[in-house]
Amino acid sequence: MKAFTVYEDKYNNKNIVNNGNKFMTGNGYMGFRGTLEEYTKNELVACNISGLYDKQGDSWREPINAPNGLFTTLIVNGNEISLLQLEPVEHMQSIDIKEGIHRRNTIWDTKDGKIIVKAERFISLEDFHLICLKYSLIVDKQCEVVIKTGIDGDVWDINGPHLENYILEDQNGLIKILSTTQELKVPVVVAEICKKSFEAKEVIEKGEKSVIRCIEFKAEPNVEYTIYKYVSVYTGNDETSNAEQDCEANALKAVYIGYEKAYNEHIIQWKYRWDVSDVIIEGNEEDQLAIRYSIYQLQIIAPVHSNKLSIPARGLSGQTYKGAIFWDTEMFMLPFFLHTAPQVALNLVNYRIRTLDGARKKAEYYGFKGAFYAWESQENGEDACSDFNVTDIFTGRPVKTYFKDKQVHISAAVSYAIWETYKFSGDIKLLLRGGAEVILECARFFYSYAYYKEDKDRYEILDVIGPDEYHERVNNNAYTSKMVYHTLDVALQALELLKKGYPKEYLELVSRLNYSVEIANIIKFKEKLYVPGPDKKTLIIEQFDGYEKLEDCSLTEVKSRLLDPKEYWGGGHGVASNTKIIKQADVILMLYLFRNQYSQEVKKANWEYYEPRTEHGSSLSPCIYSLLSCEIGNEKWAYPFFVKTANVDLTGETKQFAGSIYIGGTHPAANGGAWMATILGFAGLNVKVGEITINPNLPKTWTKLSFNVIVRGEKYLINITQKDQKIIKL
Amino acid sequence: MKAFTVYEDKYNNKNIVNNGNKFMTGNGYMGFRGTLEEYTKNELVACNISGLYDKQGDSWREPINAPNGLFTTLIVNGNEISLLQLEPVEHMQSIDIKEGIHRRNTIWDTKDGKIIVKAERFISLEDFHLICLKYSLIVDKQCEVVIKTGIDGDVWDINGPHLENYILEDQNGLIKILSTTQELKVPVVVAEICKKSFEAKEVIEKGEKSVIRCIEFKAEPNVEYTIYKYVSVYTGNDETSNAEQDCEANALKAVYIGYEKAYNEHIIQWKYRWDVSDVIIEGNEEDQLAIRYSIYQLQIIAPVHSNKLSIPARGLSGQTYKGAIFWDTEMFMLPFFLHTAPQVALNLVNYRIRTLDGARKKAEYYGFKGAFYAWESQENGEDACSDFNVTDIFTGRPVKTYFKDKQVHISAAVSYAIWETYKFSGDIKLLLRGGAEVILECARFFYSYAYYKEDKDRYEILDVIGPDEYHERVNNNAYTSKMVYHTLDVALQALELLKKGYPKEYLELVSRLNYSVEIANIIKFKEKLYVPGPDKKTLIIEQFDGYEKLEDCSLTEVKSRLLDPKEYWGGGHGVASNTKIIKQADVILMLYLFRNQYSQEVKKANWEYYEPRTEHGSSLSPCIYSLLSCEIGNEKWAYPFFVKTANVDLTGETKQFAGSIYIGGTHPAANGGAWMATILGFAGLNVKVGEITINPNLPKTWTKLSFNVIVRGEKYLINITQKDQKIIKL
Repeated sequence: MKAFTVYEDKYNNKNIVNNGNKFMTGNGYMGFRGTLEEYTKNELVACNISGLYDKQGDSWREPINAPNGLFTTLIVNGNEISLLQLEPVEHMQSIDIKEGIHRRNTIWDTKDGKIIVKAERFISLEDFHLICLKYSLIVDKQCEVVIKTGIDGDVWDINGPHLENYILEDQNGLIKILSTTQELKVPVVVAEICKKSFEAKEVIEKGEKSVIRCIEFKAEPNVEYTIYKYVSVYTGNDETSNAEQDCEANALKAVYIGYEKAYNEHIIQWKYRWDVSDVIIEGNEEDQLAIRYSIYQLQIIAPVHSNKLSIPARGLSGQTYKGAIFWDTEMFMLPFFLHTAPQVALNLVNYRIRTLDGARKKAEYYGFKGAFYAWESQENGEDACSDFNVTDIFTGRPVKTYFKDKQVHISAAVSYAIWETYKFSGDIKLLLRGGAEVILECARFFYSYAYYKEDKDRYEILDVIGPDEYHERVNNNAYTSKMVYHTLDVALQALELLKKGYPKEYLELVSRLNYSVEIANIIKFKEKLYVPGPDKKTLIIEQFDGYEKLEDCSLTEVKSRLLDPKEYWGGGHGVASNTKIIKQADVILMLYLFRNQYSQEVKKANWEYYEPRTEHGSSLSPCIYSLLSCEIGNEKWAYPFFVKTANVDLTGETKQFAGSIYIGGTHPAANGGAWMATILGFAGLNVKVGEITINPNLPKTWTKLSFNVIVRGEKYLINITQKDQKIIKL
Repeated sequence: MKAFTVYEDKYNNKNIVNNGNKFMTGNGYMGFRGTLEEYTKNELVACNISGLYDKQGDSWREPINAPNGLFTTLIVNGNEISLLQLEPVEHMQSIDIKEGIHRRNTIWDTKDGKIIVKAERFISLEDFHLICLKYSLIVDKQCEVVIKTGIDGDVWDINGPHLENYILEDQNGLIKILSTTQELKVPVVVAEICKKSFEAKEVIEKGEKSVIRCIEFKAEPNVEYTIYKYVSVYTGNDETSNAEQDCEANALKAVYIGYEKAYNEHIIQWKYRWDVSDVIIEGNEEDQLAIRYSIYQLQIIAPVHSNKLSIPARGLSGQTYKGAIFWDTEMFMLPFFLHTAPQVALNLVNYRIRTLDGARKKAEYYGFKGAFYAWESQENGEDACSDFNVTDIFTGRPVKTYFKDKQVHISAAVSYAIWETYKFSGDIKLLLRGGAEVILECARFFYSYAYYKEDKDRYEILDVIGPDEYHERVNNNAYTSKMVYHTLDVALQALELLKKGYPKEYLELVSRLNYSVEIANIIKFKEKLYVPGPDKKTLIIEQFDGYEKLEDCSLTEVKSRLLDPKEYWGGGHGVASNTKIIKQADVILMLYLFRNQYSQEVKKANWEYYEPRTEHGSSLSPCIYSLLSCEIGNEKWAYPFFVKTANVDLTGETKQFAGSIYIGGTHPAANGGAWMATILGFAGLNVKVGEITINPNLPKTWTKLSFNVIVRGEKYLINITQKDQKIIKL
């Protein structure tokens, strides 16, 4: 099915890095970049492990990449046959997003004849530790072949090396690399067993960090020689008392089951996933593929197996963004999971509940109370964000940014996500089991962060960065203040709920948090918190104090001032910093989230005002402009932003650098944004207290839009055409 | 007398710019750079007019330089004889600081024989519009001479041209250039009359912007040929109904009086000045000269003639720093004038009273109430400071700085100066005639600027820049908060004083300013204003919130990080911005100003902590370290800082650049600081309610220190030796 396949049918070594993202596979436990079997760290091969981080020296803390158990290359008559050595005559790389299968097919014309390599692999959705590869060779002249395959432990690291204490083993056909992380000495184990469809001599070569089988045989013309690799990956972070033993056992189990059965179990899981999450768009094949691909990207990184993990901003595509969890998850990915995979949604918010102490420590460090969530959160909620996140392109010096200490809206995003999940599910247990505590601690944090402006008789939220990171340290950022208000509001609602329905738990919580004095503060704070509103004449909401006085120049003008394409636009000296050009939706995001509280005129006026001033330099931006366009009934404005968002990882045309820092990888927030634009935007789906409504406004080319949602245990099918609409309870 | 002469006895064209500052003359109405007669705008000749500004296009507004009425060069047998053309065999340039006389003496050996030029000039202290030059020539072989002398209207401008509509006149021996400023069309007139001691043919040459006399004669060997130039300078800013007429009349009057009498009248005025302001140091000739030179620099820029002017940060040495008035005047120059020239001190504070409306407008622009004084104040108190004060050396782009909007301590400095002047003089009229109003409006400004931190039950002063400009937008800067506290304190004192002694004026003021509600605010604000104090263990006062967490590296280390010597150290990306390295005395200035409120231990601990972390990148810094050293009884620490301060304009070894912006010129704040270090530091002079005390601690090499002060109309002579001390009422 074409609409389920992404492929490239020409080899171009310039695409190696981008294809690593585009052809990714994964299962939430690990992500495997879309690299080819003969690639090594130079081509950014990565088997990226979710939630296992390491810090090497003074460098950034980042997730680790496990040894590559899929490494396989070919020697024919003594010559290496590899895409890195020899141009192919034919080449195809594809990903079947319906079944989560990565394939490649390469034909070389060599002096020793035609050589065909076919490979197929999957990261099992059934067994989260398992990777399987089927690798076949056909030649058209008899030749001496060596297939070198095994585990390549010389992994790609950005700020590594992260693995040390390598132990290389080889026992009864099972090869294995044991290592530990540098910082916390967490074991990382990869075991591999290889089965062949033919007889061959096998010799084990151990390198410094690799164990490679050399499978030597004489290949006959037009015979398919196939090997099956079963790779098992475990770490000390897993629920296991002995990662090494479990890893071995798992590899053996996979061999026992066999490739075909493992494959079938895997695709059955994919079928279950698509059964609830597929979105059918008829009338536009590109859009159909793009929305499915976006959903695929979310599925391969969803932490289905663990309620301790969340989703990093670059998914599991590598180490960029330090593998950290940003607000992206709460604000841009959560809606998809809420509507299609409630347990994953719970896992995501549970990660924030579990890491509350990290947020408390951060607040304390900065002299505040309550919970100040990490801007870049790692396994225990500690902040991986550095004070210097960008490198000055002209001097090579690190540039001080204030993302970590001033982007306080993260705590509001966490509260928002918990409340949305509670409202969606109606499940009070979420609040009782930590959700309410997080919200209360976030409210407490904001009270301790806020200042009272006496002569104006109001509280203000000063010195923050809103979603638009190009303007640092601003006062009264509308988005932030509105989100703080929301936090206070839901904190009071949560208290009320518990007090009425769960008085014992209420008393325990209020007493344990010493919260009774805080309640009065929060009531007063909420009552007098200043949230910038629309100007009476223009209806424009000023993004922050003084925005109106900034230089009002065009995006083209600002771009023309760049002296280097890699320059960072924000910070102290950025080209955008002192202009009205903003990085991404800020006021517009606020208007979308609180769309019921603003008139259509205000939404329209602000959309028209801010859109030309928005760089969309973040992949979080276009989807929000799309959503607000739908809200004001203008699908014409909405559609191009949907297209941009939904194709972000297909085209790879995103910002690759912030200053000189590489920020490439996949864009799960945009993937989530594409889903939001489609379902919450074009379909106008709205779920309130378990009731669902739609308000469709399909793009002109779409003849049909069809999808499922799961609301409080019930599954619904929604069918929308240009003329008709139906909600069917299944 | 050697200790009254500064000279250079070799010609070095590399010193041209610096000598322009070092050999400056002036009288407070105008400053004339220490350039030589044959120099033009290329050598930065400037007749800088106090208080007359112009803005050309989008450039910075800056003071104007009048046409140069002293221009004179020489042609001998058809060849130009000038330092710019021909190396001299002997050359001397000097300034007699006792009499304010600039001299030069140059001998050339040419193919036409030896040529000697001697020149002497003064900017009259008797007639503020008058400049006189005596210029003599001696040759040792008969030759044909042309002395070209007249008015060169092609003036040096940094952001010019400022003058336009030139009218060049020549009538009955009087030549004249009329022009107007670009922005406000203010007339600028220079008239010149030249008298000769000999017969010669005289031809007038008019250029585009110049009127030059060509005095042609055959010179006989060993005869001295002398011309006398009487130059009169007027502008439309003067108290005159017709600048042109007055200018002419003044030149004619000067001719009538004659050179010798004009000279004598001038030096008599200098004698009066020295009679009260001289400081005698015995035992160290360098120090003697340096302190006198510092006083000289202050005398030549003192606005004796007008109560509408103050003193720019670079005196009258040119257009750098936009000729603007900074806090330098109030905090570093005022003490000298208070103690030696009370009327000048009153003129200085009157300038701030007169420009209160400018400060009100600035406050309003930024959304505050009361008076927010200009960081760089020009004639009406408008702020000449731009939002971009530095240029990035790597990109050539203007760098956003926050001097203008965040250096709120300027309003406290103005209040402080008014209160100091009131306390020193005991003159309540100062308060009644605007002084109290300024202080009340500054207090009102601070209340509207401050925030209340509810959970800490205190007011805070957020988002400021303290004296250390390398750290922008900091919270709770100790110096600023302390100065705000002082403003509130004296506002309440002033109110109390008026209420008791001048109830009618009190009621009028409070009613006119609608201040009665403000009083309660200010009482509460003062009571709960947070001023950072010494840490209980270390005794260190944190310069601002978070200073303690900055990188603690050495000055050497920070310097070593510079990629270009002209780099700006502060701003968003400066090498010092994220370290503990500070530009200048900040906490130390606070400890000095409020020295009676802190223990010696605190002063010592902070001196020892902050000094190694101070770049002294501002000429305002060393004197304060010197003063606090004296305060803690350590003249050994104090002395080197005194030497640095007192020699700043003699050595010319100061920062010449901030980013790529030239900031050269004289340093009157350091000159005032040298006086403070000597009199308030080493002598330990203290005047309280008209009572004077001393607490001397002389540098080891000084055998005697002797000086006068005028306190409330009484003159005192203070004599201090290493053993003895006397205060003699004269």
